Amino acid sequence: MILGLIMKKIKVGILGATGAVGQRFIQLLENHPIFEVDFLMASKRSSGKKYIDAVNWKMDTPIPNSIRDIVVQSETKTDSLLLFSGLDSSVALEIERAFAEDGKIIISNSKNHRMYDNVPLLIPEVNYDHIKLVESQKSKGKIITNPNCSTTFFALVAGVLNKRWPIKEINVVTMQAISGAGYPGLPSYDILDNVIPYIEGEEEKMEIEPLKIMGKLLKDKIEYSDIVISSQANRVAVIDGHLENLSIKFKKDTPSVEEINDYLESFESDLYHMGLHSAVKNPIKVFKELKNRPQTRVDRMIENGMAVSVGRVRKDPIFDIKMVVLGHNTIKGAAGGAILNAELYCNYYLS
Amino acid sequence: MILGLIMKKIKVGILGATGAVGQRFIQLLENHPIFEVDFLMASKRSSGKKYIDAVNWKMDTPIPNSIRDIVVQSETKTDSLLLFSGLDSSVALEIERAFAEDGKIIISNSKNHRMYDNVPLLIPEVNYDHIKLVESQKSKGKIITNPNCSTTFFALVAGVLNKRWPIKEINVVTMQAISGAGYPGLPSYDILDNVIPYIEGEEEKMEIEPLKIMGKLLKDKIEYSDIVISSQANRVAVIDGHLENLSIKFKKDTPSVEEINDYLESFESDLYHMGLHSAVKNPIKVFKELKNRPQTRVDRMIENGMAVSVGRVRKDPIFDIKMVVLGHNTIKGAAGGAILNAELYCNYYLS
Amino acid sequence: MILGLIMKKIKVGILGATGAVGQRFIQLLENHPIFEVDFLMASKRSSGKKYIDAVNWKMDTPIPNSIRDIVVQSETKTDSLLLFSGLDSSVALEIERAFAEDGKIIISNSKNHRMYDNVPLLIPEVNYDHIKLVESQKSKGKIITNPNCSTTFFALVAGVLNKRWPIKEINVVTMQAISGAGYPGLPSYDILDNVIPYIEGEEEKMEIEPLKIMGKLLKDKIEYSDIVISSQANRVAVIDGHLENLSIKFKKDTPSVEEINDYLESFESDLYHMGLHSAVKNPIKVFKELKNRPQTRVDRMIENGMAVSVGRVRKDPIFDIKMVVLGHNTIKGAAGGAILNAELYCNYYLS
Amino acid sequence: MILGLIMKKIKVGILGATGAVGQRFIQLLENHPIFEVDFLMASKRSSGKKYIDAVNWKMDTPIPNSIRDIVVQSETKTDSLLLFSGLDSSVALEIERAFAEDGKIIISNSKNHRMYDNVPLLIPEVNYDHIKLVESQKSKGKIITNPNCSTTFFALVAGVLNKRWPIKEINVVTMQAISGAGYPGLPSYDILDNVIPYIEGEEEKMEIEPLKIMGKLLKDKIEYSDIVISSQANRVAVIDGHLENLSIKFKKDTPSVEEINDYLESFESDLYHMGLHSAVKNPIKVFKELKNRPQTRVDRMIENGMAVSVGRVRKDPIFDIKMVVLGHNTIKGAAGGAILNAELYCNYYLS
Repeated sequence: MILGLIMKKIKVGILGATGAVGQRFIQLLENHPIFEVDFLMASKRSSGKKYIDAVNWKMDTPIPNSIRDIVVQSETKTDSLLLFSGLDSSVALEIERAFAEDGKIIISNSKNHRMYDNVPLLIPEVNYDHIKLVESQKSKGKIITNPNCSTTFFALVAGVLNKRWPIKEINVVTMQAISGAGYPGLPSYDILDNVIPYIEGEEEKMEIEPLKIMGKLLKDKIEYSDIVISSQANRVAVIDGHLENLSIKFKKDTPSVEEINDYLESFESDLYHMGLHSAVKNPIKVFKELKNRPQTRVDRMIENGMAVSVGRVRKDPIFDIKMVVLGHNTIKGAAGGAILNAELYCNYYLS
Repeated sequence: MILGLIMKKIKVGILGATGAVGQRFIQLLENHPIFEVDFLMASKRSSGKKYIDAVNWKMDTPIPNSIRDIVVQSETKTDSLLLFSGLDSSVALEIERAFAEDGKIIISNSKNHRMYDNVPLLIPEVNYDHIKLVESQKSKGKIITNPNCSTTFFALVAGVLNKRWPIKEINVVTMQAISGAGYPGLPSYDILDNVIPYIEGEEEKMEIEPLKIMGKLLKDKIEYSDIVISSQANRVAVIDGHLENLSIKFKKDTPSVEEINDYLESFESDLYHMGLHSAVKNPIKVFKELKNRPQTRVDRMIENGMAVSVGRVRKDPIFDIKMVVLGHNTIKGAAGGAILNAELYCNYYLS
Repeated sequence: MILGLIMKKIKVGILGATGAVGQRFIQLLENHPIFEVDFLMASKRSSGKKYIDAVNWKMDTPIPNSIRDIVVQSETKTDSLLLFSGLDSSVALEIERAFAEDGKIIISNSKNHRMYDNVPLLIPEVNYDHIKLVESQKSKGKIITNPNCSTTFFALVAGVLNKRWPIKEINVVTMQAISGAGYPGLPSYDILDNVIPYIEGEEEKMEIEPLKIMGKLLKDKIEYSDIVISSQANRVAVIDGHLENLSIKFKKDTPSVEEINDYLESFESDLYHMGLHSAVKNPIKVFKELKNRPQTRVDRMIENGMAVSVGRVRKDPIFDIKMVVLGHNTIKGAAGGAILNAELYCNYYLS
Repeated sequence: MILGLIMKKIKVGILGATGAVGQRFIQLLENHPIFEVDFLMASKRSSGKKYIDAVNWKMDTPIPNSIRDIVVQSETKTDSLLLFSGLDSSVALEIERAFAEDGKIIISNSKNHRMYDNVPLLIPEVNYDHIKLVESQKSKGKIITNPNCSTTFFALVAGVLNKRWPIKEINVVTMQAISGAGYPGLPSYDILDNVIPYIEGEEEKMEIEPLKIMGKLLKDKIEYSDIVISSQANRVAVIDGHLENLSIKFKKDTPSVEEINDYLESFESDLYHMGLHSAVKNPIKVFKELKNRPQTRVDRMIENGMAVSVGRVRKDPIFDIKMVVLGHNTIKGAAGGAILNAELYCNYYLS
């Protein structure tokens, strides 16, 4: 900590800085002990403007003073070493690749590079060792990704359980927040007093991404898990927080409800023990007694939005167990998760 | 219709007339061709008052003029032959039984009598023949029930499919409206910007009631279905309409998506062909092309709230198929469903 | 009515047919006794497509069968005589004028022509005689407008009162529905669990439009009323219905609460006595006893959304009286109001 | 501050500890530098239970560890010197009086004692000198009150302005959060997709309380202000935060918009300069440029909910100016405001 005070911070940039995820990156990086934002990239429309004039700021804390007057760029040129990407998937592939060719470390929340063989797709509490995939990336820079927000929560819980009791099948039904659709995102006319039982592309991601995350690291790629996943995605009228109904069938041994509760509750994050700033010691909060928790509004900010909550673990007559899972989609499920990945990378390769 | 105009209507009463379900009964029975409300029963607090003074009316149409001045009773005495019960389950057992002993036909929306051997539990599109169970009831009067609202929608769809392609397993996750909790029901502070993943007693009902409904009528009881059901109930911030994510595994033959869509869409209600007033010819509305439907607010009033909507029928990697199901919980799922049951009873035993 | 059956309907068109107001026109004109939609105009993006393929239909009833296959046009050419305009104000001026030059009757919900001297701005229950302004329009066709939705409700009530007790000052605060912003309109992220105390351009309209509506018809223009109006506009999270808190100071005589209640309740629409299809006999519904009404969701559909509700009329210590006013913004406040204007025009000039 | 660390904290109690306001007191007093909760009183139903077993905890942070196991009492006996009251008004009068007779300092959020001549009714940024009224209370203990939450926000702003530019008339329309109704409070069925234009007793409080707050301290009572106030109260579907549309007419001098903005923005709280822990230096946050602010969800937590926000200050054609005011109803408008009053009392009489 004494060292931290005198350590020079790493200059980082935000790609897609005016968007919903970009804003969250800026918010969460305020006062970060090792990262300092000094580069903001957005589309040509914003280019050349001060950030405060370019952005339609939607966070619940003010724009950090150190950020307000930074002039937004649209060129893929920067001195910053590490770049957080909240780019829209329509442009992310090309821009992220250009920066990587130029030697930058890209920590991306976009879907584009996630499934490439040599790109780590990290829920680091589950598979931080996959970070080593970057060593097989041939570009001067590197690309690291985090999964879709709806994937993150059930796959973290399942990933933790899978190491102890191998999983055969997962059924997951989500009730997702509107903030997951970005900004302006969902028209209010579509969601007030309504549930929309469809989110484009979401179910496909939830059914494939966990297989890579829970897969086995080979030399230069991941051997995917053979778990069978079925998912159903719904949009509900909540601001933040994805709540998921999760059912699991195990391969052989079936733990009891008590074993699962105890195992998840006592699970400690390796990242925390590495001393990473954003890591939570017990990243899974378990509700054992209160039978109507977790709830979206009430529990989404546990551990500043970096924990996943679990409740109502109980026996299931078709699968073995079922439970309720909740996470904050734009913190742990997006910007916060990406920042933790960046801290992991720095711990491995820059310290 | 000419006959209808000169036919004398059947006098009916409403038990629990000031409650949420009681109000819906009164609303839906306005201008009913064969029923005429002339008895209103409620708790002692309301007894002796005109209905308009006793009720905190919450329907979106005014109190029918013929109802406003009826004096509410709290005694279990009436000349009405047929009684619709929206009684709270804390009192329904005793009161309904007393009326039945007294020779009345009880059409009950309460849970208390549903699982008694000789009490019909009807989704009549699926099991109208179970009405014959009343013949084994020994009381002068009879008791007929409809299932819990969250049961009605998936069990109607599954019940129809099960006759053609026998079902082995059902997994259902619900997103239920606040009106299902009655009035005052859920505090607003608990549900705004929130999802509550628990409704007391709801999952138990969804896992057992369909087994009776899809069971086989024996002489004086039902042989329950052997389908295995797993359910998860969630409360969301919508006024009316329960949306359900339904997964089904069949016993042997697995129909294609097209076969299911076609079969459900062309399914015709026997009740309609009996000429029952509240029956819908095609009680299952199928969305084949629009991939984000049904939606709660948009589709709950299809066929005046008496149809169930189905959409997104698709293959499932664990079960055989999955789909989205929607119904109006206080119409088809409660008062409207009960009225259809009453029409069925009259058609069988009073015509 | 016999006549109605054999009368040939008037062919009408919808400008901006795929937008929110355009859809409402189509919905409300289904089964209209004198109008028949046979022309749909929208932007070039929709041109050449069948309506069902061009529209993102948002109404709560299905697209009328007679409309589904009409091919949308983008040219200002049609055989229809009368055109309902739900055009966006960015294009309405030019297109409406072109059609008027071409001899068409334009019934416009857009703001562009409202304040032109010779264009009637109608809340016809208040100022149907202003329709005669069209006689001073020099184009072959004519343009008739209705006011902004937030203006309609308080200005109807004030306009009715003003005839009996001349008004000096009006203060109005609105709580407006999201549907007033069109579609996609307001992002859900902006309005859930929120109030936005600003709607662009809204207050200006509410402060000027009533002065024309309550003005005096001169030969070829309106002498504006000298009432002073102050307005404050807020957006709240309701689907439909603008609720307004209205305070009024009279010039001389101050009616009692009872006088106002009785006068408004007994007010009969001249349009109704002309026999116009969409006119309501008593267009103002007064709540005298229930002290917490009107309420937005509960009362917006009174008289199929064509009535304005008034409640809580009471003395005011600064003004003379204050009250609550409610109306359905996309029915009486937009498409429904415009259709009534068209019926009025036809009654005057086409019968 | 050094002193603070070694100073013994004052033992305080919470009356109505399980209610909504009581819970907020407990939350806000966690880690308070001079107060330490060691007495919890609630109704007999809770008496004898540990707090964690007696309460249905609704705050968004966990129950403080120091509070969980405190046994709730129902007797009016305690060693604590200072008592925060969130009692329901049906019982507050008697209980608060009994404690005061017993020598306790009652800091009450209940309405019962507010209008008594010798009871201070404080928005201390406006009238902290009224605290001296306690000196004319004859009981051993003292009673100090804060106003109704809907009063607090506009009366703070008006009270500040009134000192510089005397006010003649105030018109205020509120859009209030559901949390203002306590818990369980408003049924969700009543407020989803709705506005309720009535809150019992609210308008009366808003029209009289500010007259005492802005009144002049005489020897043993307040000479009320002669400002004329008209208020209209509405309930909207937001969790926390009352937004108000405020219009003001001044007695003589009319400040410009710029003067008001500058004056409010630069206003500093005397409480802050006294060093009170909960005081905010600039308790009024002014939005000068953003024309759609303050907004309820976005701005209610400014200064941890202890500031009042003002925006859209503009000329008014009837009054002189109008503006938008926002405050957090259960923090600044209730528990937080009461805690500041307690700090003020301690500063005057206990230091």
